[in-house]
Amino acid sequence: MRRFDKITIIGVGLIGGSIGLAAKDKRLAKTIVGVFRRESTLNRALKRGAVDKGTLDLKSGVKGADLIVIATPVSSIPRIAREAIRYADRDAVITDAGSTKRSIIKEVEGVIGSRGAALFVGSHPMAGSEHAGVEFARKDLLEGSPCIVTKTPKTDARALKIVADFWKALGAKVTIMDPAGHDRSVALISHLPHIVAFGLAGAVPARELVYAAEGFKDTTRVASSDPRLWSDIFLTNKTEVLKALKLFEDYCRRLKRSLSKGKGQELIGLLAKAKSKRDKIVYGK
Amino acid sequence: MRRFDKITIIGVGLIGGSIGLAAKDKRLAKTIVGVFRRESTLNRALKRGAVDKGTLDLKSGVKGADLIVIATPVSSIPRIAREAIRYADRDAVITDAGSTKRSIIKEVEGVIGSRGAALFVGSHPMAGSEHAGVEFARKDLLEGSPCIVTKTPKTDARALKIVADFWKALGAKVTIMDPAGHDRSVALISHLPHIVAFGLAGAVPARELVYAAEGFKDTTRVASSDPRLWSDIFLTNKTEVLKALKLFEDYCRRLKRSLSKGKGQELIGLLAKAKSKRDKIVYGK
Repeated sequence: MRRFDKITIIGVGLIGGSIGLAAKDKRLAKTIVGVFRRESTLNRALKRGAVDKGTLDLKSGVKGADLIVIATPVSSIPRIAREAIRYADRDAVITDAGSTKRSIIKEVEGVIGSRGAALFVGSHPMAGSEHAGVEFARKDLLEGSPCIVTKTPKTDARALKIVADFWKALGAKVTIMDPAGHDRSVALISHLPHIVAFGLAGAVPARELVYAAEGFKDTTRVASSDPRLWSDIFLTNKTEVLKALKLFEDYCRRLKRSLSKGKGQELIGLLAKAKSKRDKIVYGK
Repeated sequence: MRRFDKITIIGVGLIGGSIGLAAKDKRLAKTIVGVFRRESTLNRALKRGAVDKGTLDLKSGVKGADLIVIATPVSSIPRIAREAIRYADRDAVITDAGSTKRSIIKEVEGVIGSRGAALFVGSHPMAGSEHAGVEFARKDLLEGSPCIVTKTPKTDARALKIVADFWKALGAKVTIMDPAGHDRSVALISHLPHIVAFGLAGAVPARELVYAAEGFKDTTRVASSDPRLWSDIFLTNKTEVLKALKLFEDYCRRLKRSLSKGKGQELIGLLAKAKSKRDKIVYGK
């Protein structure tokens, strides 16, 4: 793994902060700079040791960086990427940590094309938790977790390799796919569980929640996530999220039909099919 | 807490085994006897140390017991309870650990009434995990977890106190309610999350699951539960489970509508409402 002169992280929250901590821990750069919107967040990130230096000025933050990682809420990424491209050094590689990819890539690739500089490669490190903020950042957050890096006909091969190697160096398991494939997959395995968890926590009357045990808490864990962040994610991947919801509703309808009709064997079959898929990803069998 | 001469546990799996381990640890009885259907399970429970002795014969197993706990799958409880009542000592108190209560109580209370002996009180210790079998039993499984004990106009006050005190002695937080109230509550906070988790694991195509991260795994954790046990639970609490599903579908429909129409503020509002309910039960705020 090459060592960077300067890595700039724009947006140093849970994900950006964890990237900073891991990159420092693994000595991937001489300097790690954070770009912030607010002084208060800058101070919290410095206190947490997530970056070496912080600035509120994007222009000076990205200057001289050979790698720029944008880890802000997903709907702000295209605007920030365009700004970063404008100020970045000619050979700088830019990536992001946004949960949806097609809409970002579509807006950003056009800008790169017209400038022929600052190479953008989309990324989605699939780590995180229901907590937000740099206080929850951990240097091992990405360790062993999937990270999807997107490739399009316009993607620069050298930049792609630099970005993929960077995530690997942080401990993530990298898969390369196109933005549309990414959005379809994460709609199913990430966005759908979130919307379902929010639906579940929202549906149960507050007075019943006093008896909630571990099953309820785990099933709704991700419903403690930030509503603004997730509204943003759902909206930027609307078509795929709605398709995923449709698949889910279909399976629930089948479960409900077997239950209504008292068809025990059919119900067991549907539950067993679900269990075997879940067991396979968790226990590998 | 009184000390029992003999506690008999019928069905020594995850729950029955954890009750045995905890009762032994807290020295709640001189002897703890397990009643089994199969020799192999008996040997596994003895090896795990979950009971002092085991038998395949229900009649001799319950003889001399002052407390009998039925921890078998929910649809078998009424039959086993009736059998246990027939052979139990005159003052023995019988309880169960079944996840639904109305159908069990309805079938069992009639029998008690006609005999005037062996007092039955329904219980539902709300602990467990997606794993089944005595190998996963833990002496602290019930520690701090909710346990609902049911009361009806026919419930004997002395038996109710003995059963409630027993669960408290095992570390559970006891709430007393009527069977219908219990079934309504657990449909919402336990059965609904299970059916939703099964629906989610069942709906996502197997090929997408390779990228599943912690969010998916947690949201579907309980879908690794035993399909037969859960088919049984859903079917014995069908009316309430279908009502709970309806509430869930309504909330999902509202989320979906805001998403489809691109109404960001409305979507954030619905997500925030869900988050605040979940945060309240987990973080108490």
